[in-house]
Amino acid sequence: MDIAYDGTEFSGWAVQPGRRTVQGVLSEALTRLVRVPVALTVAGRTDAGVHALGQVAHTDLPGLVEPRRINAALPPDVRVTEVTAAPAEFDARFSALWRQYVYRLSDGVLNPLRRRHVLGWPRSLDVEAMARAATELVGEHDFAAFCRRREGATSVRRIQSFDVVRDADEIACTVQADAFCHSMVRSLVGALIAVGEGRRDQAWPASLLTRTARADDVTVAPSHGLTLVAVGYPPDAELAARATQTRRVRR
Amino acid sequence: MDIAYDGTEFSGWAVQPGRRTVQGVLSEALTRLVRVPVALTVAGRTDAGVHALGQVAHTDLPGLVEPRRINAALPPDVRVTEVTAAPAEFDARFSALWRQYVYRLSDGVLNPLRRRHVLGWPRSLDVEAMARAATELVGEHDFAAFCRRREGATSVRRIQSFDVVRDADEIACTVQADAFCHSMVRSLVGALIAVGEGRRDQAWPASLLTRTARADDVTVAPSHGLTLVAVGYPPDAELAARATQTRRVRR
Repeated sequence: MDIAYDGTEFSGWAVQPGRRTVQGVLSEALTRLVRVPVALTVAGRTDAGVHALGQVAHTDLPGLVEPRRINAALPPDVRVTEVTAAPAEFDARFSALWRQYVYRLSDGVLNPLRRRHVLGWPRSLDVEAMARAATELVGEHDFAAFCRRREGATSVRRIQSFDVVRDADEIACTVQADAFCHSMVRSLVGALIAVGEGRRDQAWPASLLTRTARADDVTVAPSHGLTLVAVGYPPDAELAARATQTRRVRR
Repeated sequence: MDIAYDGTEFSGWAVQPGRRTVQGVLSEALTRLVRVPVALTVAGRTDAGVHALGQVAHTDLPGLVEPRRINAALPPDVRVTEVTAAPAEFDARFSALWRQYVYRLSDGVLNPLRRRHVLGWPRSLDVEAMARAATELVGEHDFAAFCRRREGATSVRRIQSFDVVRDADEIACTVQADAFCHSMVRSLVGALIAVGEGRRDQAWPASLLTRTARADDVTVAPSHGLTLVAVGYPPDAELAARATQTRRVRR
């Protein structure tokens, strides 16, 4: 399933007791439709307030359910944009080759029609400096400085591309990686903002890659500027081979 | 003043007792700042739920007030994007040469991040037929069929351009005219939707231009798809001449 949502009124993707979550709302709607409990596996467990245009989740059902039927059972802030039959080996999380996020900010007057999805910044930002700093983060590194600590988990990730582009008053920071650890994109953007404001030089974000723990001097940018744009998968034919490989690695 | 607002939580532009309106919120904020009552004249009195990116209003003040100061006193769903000193002859309403509106609809899965500003339509629309029907409405006509009746007021307007364009699932209907009467854009779009669905042929909207009263068979499209994009004015040097002319016409 391809899924889009406005994260404003959700406590993130993952089910939490007593909270309104995307997973909760979606699995409830599907459970009502197919009359068996529906478990969802997702590509990116987005935080509270984070949006998605191209989130991907999978589940095992006896047959396809039309997006139109699912959407009729959903509130308007979450939509299933496509439902596809996947090979048995497909796993929305472990088959994913990359995730792409965009973080939007505006250093002019924040367009009121965009205010739920764009961070307003009160001072002007040097986008060229931010773009150069972002480029230095591309590649495989230990992003421990940008990750919320998790016992025993690796924070090594490969950033495939990281572009910062201005379009009038709006600045889009688009980052693609094999995977992201918790709060990583928002921490990276927090570091870029410090560069854009001139509080740090452009080499500073990459200099943090030598650290082995979360950097307290990196601000985590607010969640509402962040959107999961797309998730990439290999062609179906390669999934079986990859699934075997993944199992081997995870064992 | 150039003004942008998200119309969702406003009962339109014009002050109404006991209602939250853009004019009310903005004139209150200005009154607090300059400590004299501020009267605002606006280019387009938008209805409840209609948005604006390029609304224009004027007022008489002893000096300029920075947008930043005004915005600090405003809620986030309305922003002043620019404040300019205008010649004495300038009138936001009567000096305007044209108003441009866009109406957005989606006949695919409605993007949840756009749902407050785009109308979701449950059936697919023939955009080419809509575009041809729109072209036939360009020019000076009596738009009585598309206007809410007002005693003694003319419903003759000149549409300067009317384009219907599809971008993926989203359809933008952009119309520019010297002025619009009440509910005119939403009625025009209602007529175009009937064409797009094949319920009416493409000549139907223009055929209504012969009517002398509001056409009951034209549906008024919901307000949340509509945005006032821009208002056009002559160069300052021509304003004095136009002001004299307008007074002569209005007398």
